[in-house]
Amino acid sequence: MKNIKVIAFDADDTLWVNEVYYQETEKKFCDLLADFMPQHYISQELFRTEMKNLELYGYGVKSFVLSMIETLIAIAGSTASNSLVSKVIELGKEMLEKPIEMLEGVEEVLKNLNGKYLLVMATKGDLLDQERKLVKSGLEKYFHHIEIMSDKKTSDYTKMLKRVDCEPENFLMVGNSIKSDILPVLELGAYGIHIPFHTTWEFERVEIKIENPNFLEANNITDVLRFLEMD
Amino acid sequence: MKNIKVIAFDADDTLWVNEVYYQETEKKFCDLLADFMPQHYISQELFRTEMKNLELYGYGVKSFVLSMIETLIAIAGSTASNSLVSKVIELGKEMLEKPIEMLEGVEEVLKNLNGKYLLVMATKGDLLDQERKLVKSGLEKYFHHIEIMSDKKTSDYTKMLKRVDCEPENFLMVGNSIKSDILPVLELGAYGIHIPFHTTWEFERVEIKIENPNFLEANNITDVLRFLEMD
Repeated sequence: MKNIKVIAFDADDTLWVNEVYYQETEKKFCDLLADFMPQHYISQELFRTEMKNLELYGYGVKSFVLSMIETLIAIAGSTASNSLVSKVIELGKEMLEKPIEMLEGVEEVLKNLNGKYLLVMATKGDLLDQERKLVKSGLEKYFHHIEIMSDKKTSDYTKMLKRVDCEPENFLMVGNSIKSDILPVLELGAYGIHIPFHTTWEFERVEIKIENPNFLEANNITDVLRFLEMD
Repeated sequence: MKNIKVIAFDADDTLWVNEVYYQETEKKFCDLLADFMPQHYISQELFRTEMKNLELYGYGVKSFVLSMIETLIAIAGSTASNSLVSKVIELGKEMLEKPIEMLEGVEEVLKNLNGKYLLVMATKGDLLDQERKLVKSGLEKYFHHIEIMSDKKTSDYTKMLKRVDCEPENFLMVGNSIKSDILPVLELGAYGIHIPFHTTWEFERVEIKIENPNFLEANNITDVLRFLEMD
């Protein structure tokens, strides 16, 4: 990794807590519908609706709220009152207003890398929501810019590398999702450091053993400094 | 305008029809609630809800749908059935699936400017939705890249100019909204060409007479070539 010039960090569950809030909200959503179905079935139905809507809605809180409302109506039918829909809208607003809970070591690592590498924040989700979280986090000053990506497939990374004028061999991606942060960049010949987070969205889970010299598995974000021989 | 190097085009109602679809949808939404209130009051209530949610939700179809649902519940109360909410969700999906209706002269103008200027598409709205519209339009090949902006204030344009490494005196913005496309760039000392569209969202309307040597008012997009002395 001697030739790295640009380092991109995933944000949700790499820099700060995110998936936990989705799961807490899903739990509350299931509680709202507890009279109609057991939690497990509601979660399954919600996930099916999210997957059906993914191409049209994309990622992020607003998409999640719209899929929850659709699921609610499918489960509760026209017998349910509109007040349940109101509660789902409120759950969404609470998510958008959550304070930022930064993960341990993040600021120290960014401070160390700042000035030595060009740092980018590369994330899926709602544009406005992610910009707001970055500002709330106070981490904005460490990043050259923020890339909100509608998806994280290989072609999306190719476009990003073109925009920052960087060759794959000079690029490192750091993130918690093997599927979105690691596999596509390895395919391009770039580097990937995986930092597992204790909670992963079902959609992002993969069971795979990666054997690639450009891949490293970290225990936490501080390992990034060690891998770059900066500790 | 001899020194222009970068030209950014607004997309909605500058390159293709947009506001008309919002107004058509709003009309259908009012029809759904016709038993509860006259159209005019429903529209007022919807606009109030959109403005209240703007900071949290931002722009775009998903935000519009969430505000319609909230308005529906405020107006219809718990007496209304969930089927009305389902219909609003369907109205939103129809908007996201609309084909692109390009405005006259757009492709010819972009073809002429391509290669002589760096062209950027600069738009508010949902990231995924705007990317999808650009791909559907077939105009992707003319643009260096697409900038989805969470807002179009002066500070947002400053960031964009920094990203494309362009001084204000080398930058021209073309768009249909005086408030979002013209005033902020004139404030920076850049150039603005306004192309009025027959339908404007209430939020974007301003009554102002601009006296600024960097400002030009066009009748249609073909005038851009004339102003740049390329016709």
